Amino acid sequence: MVNMIQDCNIGFIGLGVMGKNLALNLADHGYRVAGFDLDTKKVEDVLSSEIAERPTDVEKARIIGCDSLKEMLDHLATPRVIVLLVPAGQPVDDVCQNLIQAGLEPNDIVVDCGNSQWTDTIRREAEYKHQLKFFGTAVSGGEVGARFGPSLMPGGDAESWQYLKPMWEAVSAKVDEDGKPIETRTPGKPIFDGEPCTAYLGPNGAGHYVKMVHNGIEYADMQLICEAYHLLRSILGYSPKQIGKLFEKWNQGVLNSYLVEITADILQQDDIKTGEPLVDLILDSAGQKGTGRWTAISATQMGVPAGIISEAVYSRALSTLTSQRYQAASTLVGITDLADVNAEHVEASIHDALYSAKICAYAQGFQIMRAAQAEYDWKLNFVDIAKIWRGGCIIRASFLQKIADAFTEEPELDNLLLSDYFADQLEERQVGLRNSVVLAAQSGIPAPTFFSALAYFDGYRSEVLPANLLQAQRDYFGAHTYERADSARGEKFHTHWQQEGRPETQVK
Amino acid sequence: MVNMIQDCNIGFIGLGVMGKNLALNLADHGYRVAGFDLDTKKVEDVLSSEIAERPTDVEKARIIGCDSLKEMLDHLATPRVIVLLVPAGQPVDDVCQNLIQAGLEPNDIVVDCGNSQWTDTIRREAEYKHQLKFFGTAVSGGEVGARFGPSLMPGGDAESWQYLKPMWEAVSAKVDEDGKPIETRTPGKPIFDGEPCTAYLGPNGAGHYVKMVHNGIEYADMQLICEAYHLLRSILGYSPKQIGKLFEKWNQGVLNSYLVEITADILQQDDIKTGEPLVDLILDSAGQKGTGRWTAISATQMGVPAGIISEAVYSRALSTLTSQRYQAASTLVGITDLADVNAEHVEASIHDALYSAKICAYAQGFQIMRAAQAEYDWKLNFVDIAKIWRGGCIIRASFLQKIADAFTEEPELDNLLLSDYFADQLEERQVGLRNSVVLAAQSGIPAPTFFSALAYFDGYRSEVLPANLLQAQRDYFGAHTYERADSARGEKFHTHWQQEGRPETQVK
Repeated sequence: MVNMIQDCNIGFIGLGVMGKNLALNLADHGYRVAGFDLDTKKVEDVLSSEIAERPTDVEKARIIGCDSLKEMLDHLATPRVIVLLVPAGQPVDDVCQNLIQAGLEPNDIVVDCGNSQWTDTIRREAEYKHQLKFFGTAVSGGEVGARFGPSLMPGGDAESWQYLKPMWEAVSAKVDEDGKPIETRTPGKPIFDGEPCTAYLGPNGAGHYVKMVHNGIEYADMQLICEAYHLLRSILGYSPKQIGKLFEKWNQGVLNSYLVEITADILQQDDIKTGEPLVDLILDSAGQKGTGRWTAISATQMGVPAGIISEAVYSRALSTLTSQRYQAASTLVGITDLADVNAEHVEASIHDALYSAKICAYAQGFQIMRAAQAEYDWKLNFVDIAKIWRGGCIIRASFLQKIADAFTEEPELDNLLLSDYFADQLEERQVGLRNSVVLAAQSGIPAPTFFSALAYFDGYRSEVLPANLLQAQRDYFGAHTYERADSARGEKFHTHWQQEGRPETQVK
Repeated sequence: MVNMIQDCNIGFIGLGVMGKNLALNLADHGYRVAGFDLDTKKVEDVLSSEIAERPTDVEKARIIGCDSLKEMLDHLATPRVIVLLVPAGQPVDDVCQNLIQAGLEPNDIVVDCGNSQWTDTIRREAEYKHQLKFFGTAVSGGEVGARFGPSLMPGGDAESWQYLKPMWEAVSAKVDEDGKPIETRTPGKPIFDGEPCTAYLGPNGAGHYVKMVHNGIEYADMQLICEAYHLLRSILGYSPKQIGKLFEKWNQGVLNSYLVEITADILQQDDIKTGEPLVDLILDSAGQKGTGRWTAISATQMGVPAGIISEAVYSRALSTLTSQRYQAASTLVGITDLADVNAEHVEASIHDALYSAKICAYAQGFQIMRAAQAEYDWKLNFVDIAKIWRGGCIIRASFLQKIADAFTEEPELDNLLLSDYFADQLEERQVGLRNSVVLAAQSGIPAPTFFSALAYFDGYRSEVLPANLLQAQRDYFGAHTYERADSARGEKFHTHWQQEGRPETQVK
């Protein structure tokens, strides 16, 4: 091996907007980055961006461009750390193979920072075991987050984590002592104080899994906000601007969050062409990229009730059926049966509905992760997870500090709803959720996630559910047996519904 | 080849209760069956059952037992037809391999009548293409259905169907001219009249897929009935017996169905030990075997709104968390805010709620199949599907005749809700659904599928959904772009939310 320069701390493969921004972020923190991209324009772009953005007191560039993977490997001290920011799927495997051919060694660490499915990350860690250390790190916060502080969700080999930890902690978002994000947007002036929004989450796919659930919760959170907006608009006849101002106010209280903040901003934005509220000119057809869907599927697969997340996913799907909806709007007549409403009371109800439903949605998200850790043999730390979501990511909110507190107080909490704090909040606020469901039902406004949240809350706190009748039906037509409330758990009984006298027998 | 007797029409591998009953059913219709099971006791059992059940006027037994697959093959004329009723999964492949080794020929037809996942059926048809004709037929109706007339959902090679058709039509359930099931339970006295509950559904996995959706709908139907029961019991304080009588009455009207019929029966059944209503002694923890879950997952995967089915699946999952629910029942206090109710009005509302929600649940099921046919390149006939569900299967109901009529009138109907008949029904009955949702919300009774049905109905008929705000949020934090209502579909725009003046650009 000739020309081993070893002057870089980390390699980057894939210098699209996420790779570029994360590389610039690392450079801001003093790390030296070796970058490679098949598209040489992207390499030039990151180099010139660094020169343009770096303040004059920094003596020299910290990012170098490489013409080949071999050249990149030569620039890195062992064990090498190489970040992949390439499209999820086959490209990740292709790059791994190319790195192995270029001379990567078994202790070198390849970090997949893309949007990979957790099952792929699990497979890859096992598949490449003897050739490299495959490590996953999910990145949340979009372009801006990557540049100035994302929430980083790492999962993989615990030993490899020691090499990544200082860098990940340096570049991630930071929160202050109250758990509030420390905002920064100045290149070359990174934040060194504060608690970093990253923590080791567990082996193999844990990081990508947690990020997927983050997105599932994000789907629910966004849909809940949309339903609140829809109800305010339809029932009270408020303008987007009025609702924007209301969200601005709500952002000062328990609902304080990035999503509420941007909603307030969006609703007050006029279209530059027509001067109308911009939101009214945007087509009501929502896209999705899959992570919400995966979360709902994983929950369904494992048998974890997650209706709010599923309804949020379905709501996006329903929104895309614009031509069917136009037809249905004239065919299916609704009945509006709304008595006079008191605006202040409706506002307060919808506020509390949004907050109560949000608690239920997050509870479902954490239940999904609780089930997944049993399924995949992880030991997830829910305090850490809530903490690293306080900054950098899309669902960042002061609310997450309360979740961290609840799990700190009671790490083995069966469900967030059972924590003292959230149980108290729900006791106080549920009436708002009930009122909002009633208003929606009476006025014909669809509110699927509000509805699902209330059904979840009332179902979860039901000592008796009609599943006894359901189990009797199953025994009737399929001899599926049932347990008796007055017998030991596990003892199975069957009533011979077709026989004279309908005898009941215990089934071994 | 020596000793080719060729005296049987069909072979059976697996003579458990389903295999045995289907074999006896075929024998009743004059077909000669060659049976094999690794467990020789099961072979003896079906032979002695035939002797015991067959009336004296039938001269000789039509079922013979075979000691080996080879012996079975020798008894069958080519192309041979062999039914598998073995556990889903690996056993199906094992038997195929064994049959090939025993001398099965490429034109012989192997029919999987088990509960296989449709994706396995698709795979197998392709995998065994050169060795045998793999054909799927899903069987609904449980033990009794198999014996006296199931609903049969066949999918596979169209040419092979010609050999199966007469037998499938003979043994399946029959309905009369009004679409009502013709009941029979007398061995040796099969029904020859009536319209058979079977029809060729399409290639490879179509039959097993349609059966899966049948079960997904069944989950929803059962949960809806349970919620109606729960509301009647909680709000009106009715006893199980009273509710049973009410269901008996409802079974005479638009709700007429097997599931309502058995519910009426179950609710009037006393426990033989204690004399209490049996339903009160059954543990409220519902089991599931997977097909509802698969339906919800397939819907989510394809982006078809199916909240009612998902909520039904989640309800079963929630019911199993008995110890958490007991804890939550004391921790999470509900607020009961129910004014005086008029019993007759509540009864009528819940009746109409059950009916409206049922329409929505079936609409979702048919939407799932509509999406699947595009996904898997099938051409499903929704008239046939509705018709073959009128008898034999668990969801059999006079309601299915209405669905068949709707698709007959308009084969390309975008959604059942848009048919004249169901649109009219919903216009009239939706107020009951709205009232029931209001009652549930106010009294703290969980009604997840009632809730989801109303949200679906109101969402589907919404000309404008708040997905415009959601899409704006996505554009704000992730530059995901949006379409404008006043521009051509497909044109994408992005507002530069972080830039001065927030310019909007069209994105190519």
